[in-house]
Amino acid sequence: MPSPAVDYARQHQSRFLDELKDLLRIPSVSTLPEHKADVRRAAEWLAAELTRIGMQHVEVIDTPGHPLVYADWLHAAGKPTCLAYGHYDVQPADPLDEWKTPPFEPTERDGNLYARGAVDDKGQMYMHVKALESLLATSGGKLPINIRVLLEGEEEVGGEQIAAFVQRHPERLQSDFALISDTELFAADLPTLCVGLRGMIYTEIEVRGAMTDLHSGMYGGAAPNPFVALCQIIAQLKDANGRVQVPGFYDRVEAPTPDELAAWKSLPFDEEHYRKSEIGSPTLTGEPGYGVLERTWARPTLDVHGMPGGFTGAGAKTVIPAKATAKVSMRLVPAMTAEDTFAKYKKFVESLCPAGVTVEVRLIHQGEAMVIDTANPYIEAATRALKEIWGKDTVFIRSGGSIPIVGDFKRYLKLPSVMMGFGLPDDNLHAPNEKFHIANFHRGIESIIRFWEETAK
Amino acid sequence: MPSPAVDYARQHQSRFLDELKDLLRIPSVSTLPEHKADVRRAAEWLAAELTRIGMQHVEVIDTPGHPLVYADWLHAAGKPTCLAYGHYDVQPADPLDEWKTPPFEPTERDGNLYARGAVDDKGQMYMHVKALESLLATSGGKLPINIRVLLEGEEEVGGEQIAAFVQRHPERLQSDFALISDTELFAADLPTLCVGLRGMIYTEIEVRGAMTDLHSGMYGGAAPNPFVALCQIIAQLKDANGRVQVPGFYDRVEAPTPDELAAWKSLPFDEEHYRKSEIGSPTLTGEPGYGVLERTWARPTLDVHGMPGGFTGAGAKTVIPAKATAKVSMRLVPAMTAEDTFAKYKKFVESLCPAGVTVEVRLIHQGEAMVIDTANPYIEAATRALKEIWGKDTVFIRSGGSIPIVGDFKRYLKLPSVMMGFGLPDDNLHAPNEKFHIANFHRGIESIIRFWEETAK
Repeated sequence: MPSPAVDYARQHQSRFLDELKDLLRIPSVSTLPEHKADVRRAAEWLAAELTRIGMQHVEVIDTPGHPLVYADWLHAAGKPTCLAYGHYDVQPADPLDEWKTPPFEPTERDGNLYARGAVDDKGQMYMHVKALESLLATSGGKLPINIRVLLEGEEEVGGEQIAAFVQRHPERLQSDFALISDTELFAADLPTLCVGLRGMIYTEIEVRGAMTDLHSGMYGGAAPNPFVALCQIIAQLKDANGRVQVPGFYDRVEAPTPDELAAWKSLPFDEEHYRKSEIGSPTLTGEPGYGVLERTWARPTLDVHGMPGGFTGAGAKTVIPAKATAKVSMRLVPAMTAEDTFAKYKKFVESLCPAGVTVEVRLIHQGEAMVIDTANPYIEAATRALKEIWGKDTVFIRSGGSIPIVGDFKRYLKLPSVMMGFGLPDDNLHAPNEKFHIANFHRGIESIIRFWEETAK
Repeated sequence: MPSPAVDYARQHQSRFLDELKDLLRIPSVSTLPEHKADVRRAAEWLAAELTRIGMQHVEVIDTPGHPLVYADWLHAAGKPTCLAYGHYDVQPADPLDEWKTPPFEPTERDGNLYARGAVDDKGQMYMHVKALESLLATSGGKLPINIRVLLEGEEEVGGEQIAAFVQRHPERLQSDFALISDTELFAADLPTLCVGLRGMIYTEIEVRGAMTDLHSGMYGGAAPNPFVALCQIIAQLKDANGRVQVPGFYDRVEAPTPDELAAWKSLPFDEEHYRKSEIGSPTLTGEPGYGVLERTWARPTLDVHGMPGGFTGAGAKTVIPAKATAKVSMRLVPAMTAEDTFAKYKKFVESLCPAGVTVEVRLIHQGEAMVIDTANPYIEAATRALKEIWGKDTVFIRSGGSIPIVGDFKRYLKLPSVMMGFGLPDDNLHAPNEKFHIANFHRGIESIIRFWEETAK
């Protein structure tokens, strides 16, 4: 179907990309206090752009954390309302020395745009903005449906403020469905909708031994070593096969349907290629008896992200640290709950505490797992739009990641979410050399234009 | 016995302390590359002071690492020669926020001088310099015996350069005994000589999983987690009682003699007071069946000092790090050797490597354990001097720490060492709020003056 908005987007590809680069140059790292002003600057940059393209009621909403950005256009009487969500904060860029070009100097290389946040999520979030511009510019300032835009600046640190806002102001966000572009294609050129997400609890285990750091020569053999104790705890959290040992951890796990499992088996996936090209470890790990897709989409897991404390510089310091901490998260699947899982985990960790030390288990943030019923008109409109732009039938996958806001939209706003993302599996999310395939940025904008046009029918 | 040098030291206490403060203000942290110039500055400061007081052949000796400082006075014909050793480098000061006053702003409080290096070893090393000044100033520029001074700037990072120098230039260091003041009194007011040291191997275990950092949502359940693997390895290095599990680890351990054990039992030591005042943990740890003094002086141990890698900032980053490292050291006792122990440890760690990751074990530095025969004239001279200044009989103890240079002096120069130190057990070596009891600084100077005078007899 001819779409003037799609034509417009194609004519302005170069400018759209340049604008995205400007946004990527703002180091809006939400987890690092020293970047607080940068996070706000990104919010204000986006608010200005939403105003410029013709959105209304544009507002940078202050919160106790990083700000939200809101905008709307609500004059399509009788048409549905879409809540378009994205996040403009990014992960820290460290380790910096592994980036081939600086993380906040967007660089084009081999058809990709390299920068922290290129795909997660600035680049994908900005597709929504450019789809809106294309529609508004070619329809005399009108949109085919009603749109509310809601952007947050702390998705990478748990999204506490947007969750509170959604819970407190359902009337300001009243909509029929949500659109979220923070996921990926299953393979290059394969249009993909994500219909399931893992949940997460992110925790810290802190072990304390002596009241102060001690010299390991003077006190080694009498003073407890909190790192050894912490290692003894962590070693008991998973068995050699990667099965989590927390009692009752798997009790509530619901297996995917036989249909879903069969569909996953037909996806183009080569485990050995995946191991070599994406992981690069000698072997893969995880529970025996489950394929990689099932393990990463539909099985809960436990990972350790870092163990702060003690001496971590170059060379040798002979200290017995007073305390040691581990950052430990668990991915959850339907129908586990964050609350139940954390309670079981905390109790188990406390039960493992060795003599001579004390242990404290803290919950840093949480999000619930979910699956979306594919038999809804918005998912169907999305598959029609994707077929038109990509020339292929859509595949339905799940993601191993967690997008807690999808759960909040369901719980507080009763919205189904359409998770239409255009990242690629090797885009290095949360890692050095994050990138976004530039062709996918442009096809994403076109897909979103056509999706919104289709939902107006 | 009246000593004009002791009188001189008593008259100049205030200036001696002020000079020490100047030296402590130089942040000569040998392990941190950013302090390289400060380490040299401390060496030059000391060379200038040795020249000023009348020592000869003063030289800052360049090495591939931090410099050595040498000086001598060799005109006491027919008298013995003492090699006076000390180190002017210090441990890093972190964690900075636990210091009550800044680590490089020496501060007097309750009769103590607080600063990084106050007791380890700038303050104790400087006692030698001030004893030399007192003797030279009161004897027309003469000393009762021959003295060579040798100071190093990398004791806290393994002392590689001084070890190489001692091995290469035994002729330049020809002496009859060494004096080292880098140990402590067993209790306040109890003159103490240290006659045994533990050795050490300081190692790093590096575990590598994926080829790059990965998102724990996308890859959790398939990608190996190097921290979990490292914890699984470390948890197997010690059992719940603190006994090291490396096969053959204890094979060569020689127990102290029954006489030595009996002498230790008569020392004023209260385990519960030690736990409360020095350690502060709920219980002590270590091998059952051995007392605290035996565990810390005469039993080998294993400690983890820190586990660099991954995400260690505030908040949450959902990364599966590509690699994780642990800094692990072992304290050795006679007749274990560093070489044999490292080989057994490396083999054991490699055998524990879980599937999906690779492990590398690196030796960072090493020093051998040793015991000194107390029946030698220099130890006897030391006990006479200590009795005179402190009014009490000397106790002979061991130290759980490692002073590798004592082994090098024995091996390459055939020297017995007199380890006459004046620190206190609660001086916070290697920890925040390191201090030196000011009265002990002054009594230490007097003890060393009298010791050198006694060795001339």
